[in-house]
Amino acid sequence: MSKRSATNGLNQRTTNELNHRMTNGVNVDQLFATINAIKDNPGLAKFQFRAANEWINGGHNRTAIKDFYGAGQEDTTRRQIFVFDNDEPAVLLGEDNGANPVEFVLHALAGCLTTSLVYHAAAQGIKIEAVESRFEGELDLRGFLGMSENVRNGYENIRVTFKIKADAPEEKLKELCELAQKRSPVFDIITNPTPVSVQLATE
Amino acid sequence: MSKRSATNGLNQRTTNELNHRMTNGVNVDQLFATINAIKDNPGLAKFQFRAANEWINGGHNRTAIKDFYGAGQEDTTRRQIFVFDNDEPAVLLGEDNGANPVEFVLHALAGCLTTSLVYHAAAQGIKIEAVESRFEGELDLRGFLGMSENVRNGYENIRVTFKIKADAPEEKLKELCELAQKRSPVFDIITNPTPVSVQLATE
Repeated sequence: MSKRSATNGLNQRTTNELNHRMTNGVNVDQLFATINAIKDNPGLAKFQFRAANEWINGGHNRTAIKDFYGAGQEDTTRRQIFVFDNDEPAVLLGEDNGANPVEFVLHALAGCLTTSLVYHAAAQGIKIEAVESRFEGELDLRGFLGMSENVRNGYENIRVTFKIKADAPEEKLKELCELAQKRSPVFDIITNPTPVSVQLATE
Repeated sequence: MSKRSATNGLNQRTTNELNHRMTNGVNVDQLFATINAIKDNPGLAKFQFRAANEWINGGHNRTAIKDFYGAGQEDTTRRQIFVFDNDEPAVLLGEDNGANPVEFVLHALAGCLTTSLVYHAAAQGIKIEAVESRFEGELDLRGFLGMSENVRNGYENIRVTFKIKADAPEEKLKELCELAQKRSPVFDIITNPTPVSVQLATE
């Protein structure tokens, strides 16, 4: 997980691809090497992810994502800045220049459950052929508008349906679904309280 | 908020733009018309947002977002499908084809706090000139890897810094920061528990 071992990981990856030792596109040797490196030095597990946002107009704003810290150092491998626009549809007074923030929550949850499922399946040697998932979140606008103390601002609930094709019996696929929820960072962030501290910078 | 009143809202918008009655790019007349419509018919406040995700390979997967239900009907105004890729950087065994799911959480939070701030400022008649914000989330990978029961999977904490330029004293800007947190759907989703139910579809 240090620069040196990350490089080793990438070298292993090339070797593994040649030797067909990847599972689900995940380098399982690198995965177990990462776990062993963290056992020796738990500080390598500490990551910090970052985002910078700028308001454009109305419900339209833009986020840039690039730098992060992890595995004991600032990342030096990411080549591009990822840029995403939030906006609201017309009925929510926006101009629909992008998905809205609560839709991005569904995207984040979808990605994290899927990756958690695929990585942990790889660790168990289960080959996945296909994963599809659908997400529905119910939200009552009276929360955001401050019209009722009995209505929360966020999703009242989120329903997820997974379809998985894999070389495994249905019971095993159900276990993988459970494991994805048990290990997914975004599932944890959404289903449990995560502290957020907001400060106003004075110039 | 019905199809008819949404159309009225858009008509008002044009009029308002001509008459300079927009604040912060938000049609305040339409905002108050929405609140009044919901007072008469609370069911108009009910929204359902959706996403569909497909796994590609390893940590790479893709979400499509388009349809939603709100204001008493299926949306008919959104013209395009928004598509976003999740992936992981090399150190997290991915190929960096997109931001990762926990980075998208920061993007969603950034957008929602900003829009909440800007809309509620508009409702109060406070003109905003600029809003910038930075987000940092601390995450210990031992949670995802299942290496420690004492480490959570998601962010241990998220720190947010806002810079706001507006025609208002600093005390008012602090109030707006507080109000954004009090009303933001994504802030609520992250800081409070949100129920998520996952099921496996059997074909």
